[in-house]
Amino acid sequence: MPATIIKNGTVVTADLTYKADVKIENGVITEIGPNLSGGDELDATGCYVMPGGIDPHVHLEMPFMGTYSADDFESGTRAGLAGGTTTVVDFCLPDPGQSLLDALKRWDNKSTRANCDYSFHMAITWWGEQVFNEMETVVREKGINTFKHFMAYKGALMVNDDELFASFQRCAELGALPLVHAENGDVVASMQAKLLAEGNNGPEGHAYSRPAEVEGEATNRAIMIADMAGVPLYVVHTSCEQAHEAIRRARQAGKRVYGEPLIQHLTLDESEYFHKDWDHAARRVMSPPFRNKQHQDSLWAGLQSGSLQVVATDHCAFTTEQKRYGVGDFTKIPNGTGGLEDRLPMLWTYGVSTGRLTPNEFVAVTSTNIAKILNMYPKKGAILVGADADIVVLDPEKEKTISAKTQQSAIDYNVFEGKHVKGLPRFTLSRGKVVVHDGEIRTEEGHGKFVAREPFQAVNKALSTWKELVAPRPVERTGIPASGV
Amino acid sequence: MPATIIKNGTVVTADLTYKADVKIENGVITEIGPNLSGGDELDATGCYVMPGGIDPHVHLEMPFMGTYSADDFESGTRAGLAGGTTTVVDFCLPDPGQSLLDALKRWDNKSTRANCDYSFHMAITWWGEQVFNEMETVVREKGINTFKHFMAYKGALMVNDDELFASFQRCAELGALPLVHAENGDVVASMQAKLLAEGNNGPEGHAYSRPAEVEGEATNRAIMIADMAGVPLYVVHTSCEQAHEAIRRARQAGKRVYGEPLIQHLTLDESEYFHKDWDHAARRVMSPPFRNKQHQDSLWAGLQSGSLQVVATDHCAFTTEQKRYGVGDFTKIPNGTGGLEDRLPMLWTYGVSTGRLTPNEFVAVTSTNIAKILNMYPKKGAILVGADADIVVLDPEKEKTISAKTQQSAIDYNVFEGKHVKGLPRFTLSRGKVVVHDGEIRTEEGHGKFVAREPFQAVNKALSTWKELVAPRPVERTGIPASGV
Amino acid sequence: MPATIIKNGTVVTADLTYKADVKIENGVITEIGPNLSGGDELDATGCYVMPGGIDPHVHLEMPFMGTYSADDFESGTRAGLAGGTTTVVDFCLPDPGQSLLDALKRWDNKSTRANCDYSFHMAITWWGEQVFNEMETVVREKGINTFKHFMAYKGALMVNDDELFASFQRCAELGALPLVHAENGDVVASMQAKLLAEGNNGPEGHAYSRPAEVEGEATNRAIMIADMAGVPLYVVHTSCEQAHEAIRRARQAGKRVYGEPLIQHLTLDESEYFHKDWDHAARRVMSPPFRNKQHQDSLWAGLQSGSLQVVATDHCAFTTEQKRYGVGDFTKIPNGTGGLEDRLPMLWTYGVSTGRLTPNEFVAVTSTNIAKILNMYPKKGAILVGADADIVVLDPEKEKTISAKTQQSAIDYNVFEGKHVKGLPRFTLSRGKVVVHDGEIRTEEGHGKFVAREPFQAVNKALSTWKELVAPRPVERTGIPASGV
Amino acid sequence: MPATIIKNGTVVTADLTYKADVKIENGVITEIGPNLSGGDELDATGCYVMPGGIDPHVHLEMPFMGTYSADDFESGTRAGLAGGTTTVVDFCLPDPGQSLLDALKRWDNKSTRANCDYSFHMAITWWGEQVFNEMETVVREKGINTFKHFMAYKGALMVNDDELFASFQRCAELGALPLVHAENGDVVASMQAKLLAEGNNGPEGHAYSRPAEVEGEATNRAIMIADMAGVPLYVVHTSCEQAHEAIRRARQAGKRVYGEPLIQHLTLDESEYFHKDWDHAARRVMSPPFRNKQHQDSLWAGLQSGSLQVVATDHCAFTTEQKRYGVGDFTKIPNGTGGLEDRLPMLWTYGVSTGRLTPNEFVAVTSTNIAKILNMYPKKGAILVGADADIVVLDPEKEKTISAKTQQSAIDYNVFEGKHVKGLPRFTLSRGKVVVHDGEIRTEEGHGKFVAREPFQAVNKALSTWKELVAPRPVERTGIPASGV
Ligand SMILES: [Zn+2]
Ligand SMILES: [Zn+2]
Ligand SMILES: [Zn+2]
Ligand SMILES: [Zn+2]
Ligand SMILES: [Zn+2]
Ligand SMILES: [Zn+2]
Ligand SMILES: [Zn+2]
Ligand SMILES: [Zn+2]
Repeated sequence: MPATIIKNGTVVTADLTYKADVKIENGVITEIGPNLSGGDELDATGCYVMPGGIDPHVHLEMPFMGTYSADDFESGTRAGLAGGTTTVVDFCLPDPGQSLLDALKRWDNKSTRANCDYSFHMAITWWGEQVFNEMETVVREKGINTFKHFMAYKGALMVNDDELFASFQRCAELGALPLVHAENGDVVASMQAKLLAEGNNGPEGHAYSRPAEVEGEATNRAIMIADMAGVPLYVVHTSCEQAHEAIRRARQAGKRVYGEPLIQHLTLDESEYFHKDWDHAARRVMSPPFRNKQHQDSLWAGLQSGSLQVVATDHCAFTTEQKRYGVGDFTKIPNGTGGLEDRLPMLWTYGVSTGRLTPNEFVAVTSTNIAKILNMYPKKGAILVGADADIVVLDPEKEKTISAKTQQSAIDYNVFEGKHVKGLPRFTLSRGKVVVHDGEIRTEEGHGKFVAREPFQAVNKALSTWKELVAPRPVERTGIPASGV
Repeated sequence: MPATIIKNGTVVTADLTYKADVKIENGVITEIGPNLSGGDELDATGCYVMPGGIDPHVHLEMPFMGTYSADDFESGTRAGLAGGTTTVVDFCLPDPGQSLLDALKRWDNKSTRANCDYSFHMAITWWGEQVFNEMETVVREKGINTFKHFMAYKGALMVNDDELFASFQRCAELGALPLVHAENGDVVASMQAKLLAEGNNGPEGHAYSRPAEVEGEATNRAIMIADMAGVPLYVVHTSCEQAHEAIRRARQAGKRVYGEPLIQHLTLDESEYFHKDWDHAARRVMSPPFRNKQHQDSLWAGLQSGSLQVVATDHCAFTTEQKRYGVGDFTKIPNGTGGLEDRLPMLWTYGVSTGRLTPNEFVAVTSTNIAKILNMYPKKGAILVGADADIVVLDPEKEKTISAKTQQSAIDYNVFEGKHVKGLPRFTLSRGKVVVHDGEIRTEEGHGKFVAREPFQAVNKALSTWKELVAPRPVERTGIPASGV
Repeated sequence: MPATIIKNGTVVTADLTYKADVKIENGVITEIGPNLSGGDELDATGCYVMPGGIDPHVHLEMPFMGTYSADDFESGTRAGLAGGTTTVVDFCLPDPGQSLLDALKRWDNKSTRANCDYSFHMAITWWGEQVFNEMETVVREKGINTFKHFMAYKGALMVNDDELFASFQRCAELGALPLVHAENGDVVASMQAKLLAEGNNGPEGHAYSRPAEVEGEATNRAIMIADMAGVPLYVVHTSCEQAHEAIRRARQAGKRVYGEPLIQHLTLDESEYFHKDWDHAARRVMSPPFRNKQHQDSLWAGLQSGSLQVVATDHCAFTTEQKRYGVGDFTKIPNGTGGLEDRLPMLWTYGVSTGRLTPNEFVAVTSTNIAKILNMYPKKGAILVGADADIVVLDPEKEKTISAKTQQSAIDYNVFEGKHVKGLPRFTLSRGKVVVHDGEIRTEEGHGKFVAREPFQAVNKALSTWKELVAPRPVERTGIPASGV
Repeated sequence: MPATIIKNGTVVTADLTYKADVKIENGVITEIGPNLSGGDELDATGCYVMPGGIDPHVHLEMPFMGTYSADDFESGTRAGLAGGTTTVVDFCLPDPGQSLLDALKRWDNKSTRANCDYSFHMAITWWGEQVFNEMETVVREKGINTFKHFMAYKGALMVNDDELFASFQRCAELGALPLVHAENGDVVASMQAKLLAEGNNGPEGHAYSRPAEVEGEATNRAIMIADMAGVPLYVVHTSCEQAHEAIRRARQAGKRVYGEPLIQHLTLDESEYFHKDWDHAARRVMSPPFRNKQHQDSLWAGLQSGSLQVVATDHCAFTTEQKRYGVGDFTKIPNGTGGLEDRLPMLWTYGVSTGRLTPNEFVAVTSTNIAKILNMYPKKGAILVGADADIVVLDPEKEKTISAKTQQSAIDYNVFEGKHVKGLPRFTLSRGKVVVHDGEIRTEEGHGKFVAREPFQAVNKALSTWKELVAPRPVERTGIPASGV
């Protein structure tokens, strides 16, 4: 394979902005500097050469009520690449009682079709000695250092505080990082029943049943449990000020907690659920639901100040037909929206072009920070010699209006329909392969490979050191009871 | 019965400080003003004539592992009166599965020995249709408008989030006020097991197993659930900044939440558990445990600013012999300390004499605020014509050193042993009866009567009005699904 | 003068709600109870009998650029009484260099026309030995215990940090309470110049020049200075979350700080300044300017939680003609709006009817808390035997649409024009005189008397005690320098 | 000059930890990788190869009362290098009325003796058209992009709010970054006078006169002014929770504010001022003074969470003899302590060894973050090909007890005297020159060069874009006044 050279662009990383060419050989960056030559050239004049996006939170071909979410590893990763995202991290979801390793086989199967590299989080959907033991195998042999926990979806994926504490302690031992979907599942279930009983059965009922307070509470609870267990924590889809406040409060006490806003929550608001058209509203049903502008401001400020670190999509695409399972009962509307193709252009347009984020911060929150937190850096998330050539060449002048008609995703709508974005990939490279070439999609099914991730990151080790230093110690007594007995 | 006149004192209420005599007839205040005459006189020269203390949180003769807490309604109320407290509120604790009304009969029996007036909170220790129904009877017929919920004591008194939400909603309907003991019971139980396994079996293990974070979390959770249910909330024994912060945060969002620090947490700290003497430490075992100075500062500031409203004792006295059930296993040490006799003198000495609280604020937090929140005002908590003559005549120059040797409580130690207090009752009156007379105790067993308390206070009504105003409403749609179907 | 009896109403105070008649003789309440007789009767059936409103912040006949604000003590107090307000507190404003006592004479003259009782705050508009000395006279001989300080209006009323600190220390010595108008005058002046230079000369420029951050900063600064000086602090016209946050933060540290939202800021928002009509916008020009909905929510929550204590108007009415001094230069628009007649009905409608406030809280924030903080209680702010018969009999069913056409104020517009209010006085009594009689105004010019207010309230004394306890003390050294010299 | 190769070490940067050799030629890193050869080798076995420390805040040979601080550019930079610090940033301090450019010449002269590279901040100590104009020259021609402002030192360096606002606006235009020393100078001056008058003239009076509240206030004020001016802000020597809280609050609103704790404030506390020995206390006199443990915890948490970004020293060393100018009057004690040699070992010992910080975070806060914020990255603060070879090879097993006896600094004491540190340089390289060689100091006077720094960093540009987007715009009106005129 001949070398590829990205010519005349401006390299933009989480740290730096500078003019340089980038040379790629065998899927890896081999040289960065001025006036490189000796390979096929990609003209990046006027463009930013950035680490490809990493989406830390997607659900491709997710099993649901006997069917699957509509975007599988092929169409999902194709959508991602079209938008400049070159790595996705999916969630392996064991059924209650199922072996983690058995579940992982299923995910291994599905992911063979991926167009870009991918990794997995393992979900802890039940608890028992088998899970306890298999967690070690998953970490040591399967390249997975993150475990997802659902505090909602009562009766299905939800685990209780006992189980959270046990699993978080296990993560601490294994040097792994627990993730939580933070909503109080008990209260959500009760609210759902109450709303349905009162005749609130439309998609807006979904939002009513999961107010920000319910997310804030669970976030706060997960943080406390992680602190007791002595392990860092990653809170997925932080959508509101209440959850963000809990994260900030933890961080300002020195706790190691990460928060992940979604591009949807940053740019779309709750008014979508009040749309007269049922389909319009139902297509936006996801958990947590969209919030109001104040929550959006909170999330943006979190990215600016570093109290929130990454931007994801929770891409889980269902067709309108699938959404209509929930006609007459919002609790049956499949939860999830798309976003993989739109995350980078939307964030660039609403974040960088407005001055909220610097281009470097854009790279950090879409790629580098994620790679660091999940321990894929600098293989992923970097423009460095030796790093995988997962690269997006972003043309800041290229623009379009988002539309389902022109998207890669398999579904029939797009929640960002009509949004005008400016700042789009001229090229996307997946491990050196040019998969987006100036508007043309050249993905290759099965090109993607699994990215193994090691445990015991620096933050885990530091936290364990500190917790050991301040661990409870028995008081030495001169007799028990000592007083005259 | 001849009239009694308190002469030459300075009346101090939550609102006012002024010179006046107070005339009492048939247990009730009948006149307040200068130069009253026509009755037995009590010389209050140099003294403050204040509403008697109300302790909103006591456990007298509480059943525990086949025995009972050592202070019963006789000795407990005697201790209270000796220290200027003229009303206590105890907790009726149904066994799991037991009828609320059956449990109440037991409490009615025990309380016949009370030396001063008393009232009851009803505990919700399990959930079911019977409880749901009996709550109405308890409110409408039994004069109880407050329901206690334990978020800790897993396997015993603890209820889960489902049950909390159901009970809180029921409280909202009935115009009642829910109370919570806020600690995460799951985490406490896990921490206890872990500590014991690690050899931390001394009384300090009790403190280690219930850190401030665990209380803060549960407080935050209870607040969210009350908010969802649309009901005010009263958090008992708020002991730490974390719980206080949750309360402040709720209040600054307009939520109706009350916090109750204990005199122990205001004045004693965690170093007690590190005492070399096992008995010394074990006698201080209560939940939540004592905290450090920073938490104390937080609680004092809460009383000053109004984010915390009342001061209680959680008086639940166990003898050293009973405490020793827990030798070798701190989880078996009975939880609880005394305090009924010491609350007012300790708070006066450490609060008023230092300038942290005004004398009026002292009355508010020991009496008037409690009477208002629990709906006993102005029968209790007031120096007003028509109010019960529950009065403490506090001599600001009278002083002593607290000692178990001279206390009324039935136990053999006092957690405030050795504290020097200045500001003690010259007289205490219980519904007009002079039960403390210049150092002499003249209580009368059985003098105390039950105080019935009505539901639907102004705050409940206002909150319900607001919640109705902002209640979820279905979106009107033109067809479901409307879009082309 | 025959007795007056308010019959069949429900007495509502800051503490209590109960059915009773109220008897008035010689301007004072002489009896409260059922079935009173022996006097002229006022039928209060269906009504609430409440302490008349106290407005702690008005400017009547205020000197301004050679003219005066349009409502003087006659029309201003008439407006107040029409809306149920029975006491106003005005600000005596010495010119720079002028004797405080000379200025007070002018205010004494103007106030002879008052229809209701009134009191004064003294402003510290410059600093020097004369001011230092006269402050004592003002407190000891003139019945004034509050001193106002302007942190804005650079070049006119503004004092700097040095002067604030000196004056606050003087207040501490005298047992007085400092008040502040908190905006950073330097920054406001610079912003004004900048905006005018940029062509922003319309009334909206007024709002642009005084953003919430500028108020929050000054509030925070005043709090620090008061804390250093060891004196409580009262922040007038708290209009925004930033200032409220500073107050909350201070209070949660145990500091004694009060905040005063205005009815305007609670119910009107910044969109008024963007009105196409210049007059409309200019008529709303006041400092601080109206804010957005989030700030309003913050203020309401402050009243609910007690972090803000009182509601005022800053009534300072200028005619449209006067407002037009500022055509082409917003800095010349006279600052101020009306509100005296509307404060109670607006707060009842938007506060009590919505469920944000209880009726008792309404009384507290419009009357009783003010009387307590300013030391007029229980002469004012109470329905108690012996209290002045300043009473509003509020009919919760009486309604109207606010309009300049029907108002008492002398100006030609009303910032609440078109607002529908429900809850209006059936009767208002000023020291026993029925000045509003079922829609008819029966005020008597000159009826109002000055209300003297004593220093050294309980809060001042407690704070001084605490500050003395924690005062800096020199370290005892064995030689200076001790080390080998 | 032959190449130098650092062999067998572990490279630790702000991002990464990996085994590699580092090759240096002509003062620059030219290769990083395994098994490098072809040069003089430095054995880094068992060591961490890290970017040399950058101290963003030092005062070398600072003019003071007719004399100078004791460490000049020679001894000061020698001390820094001995402790692994390879770049210092000093403050050019014009006299009141002096030309910025004239002052700079003096600093240029003094710095010719530097052993390591250095840069300058320019102080704005007065305001006028000349300053306004020269700021541009300083930025465009002199390589300085940071301007320091003193909010304290009244009558000397202090500028008022007007001047701050003007200078901050000028910084915004020039793409520069303003710095502030944040204490309320008016209040400090008043407190000093008050304390002296009360007989508090010892060094503890210095601490009493500058409590945390005074620093918090000024920090908050500077933040507001920077926000109004639309410019980022850097707060030097953030020593307390109050200042940190103001910074956090600003950041969580999306403001661009940096905070700089000193190693002294992280590890030493206020008890030092209560030492019986006057000299001991006086030697610790600096502004802000040391605080208590709670403030320390706050600062550590800030470094962990990113709300504080860098660690400095404010190195300004005075001999005991100089300190004694203040015998009998603490206001005359020269302000300042040493720290240049000890910053890295102290932070490693108390930060990394305890688990509070990861090794990568250590690099970030001592070097990389500073280089980025001040715009020296990646020339400084990086182990990257092309970066200056400013490197510390830290041996985590090397230990010592800090003592004045063995220090490089010119003064006769050390505020860290007796602290045992583990983690010391085996080698320090300054632009390739080995200046510390396994315990031996091999510095070369005059080796250091000035580091020019460009304006208009990404954060400045983003903030300007945002401020332009939300800038005030005049309302279009149809006539002024429109209503009927
Ligand atoms: Zn989820
Ligand atoms: Zn998900
Ligand atoms: Zn309890
Ligand atoms: Zn209890
Ligand atoms: Zn004002
Ligand atoms: Zn005013
Ligand atoms: Zn400084
Ligand atoms: Zn300095």
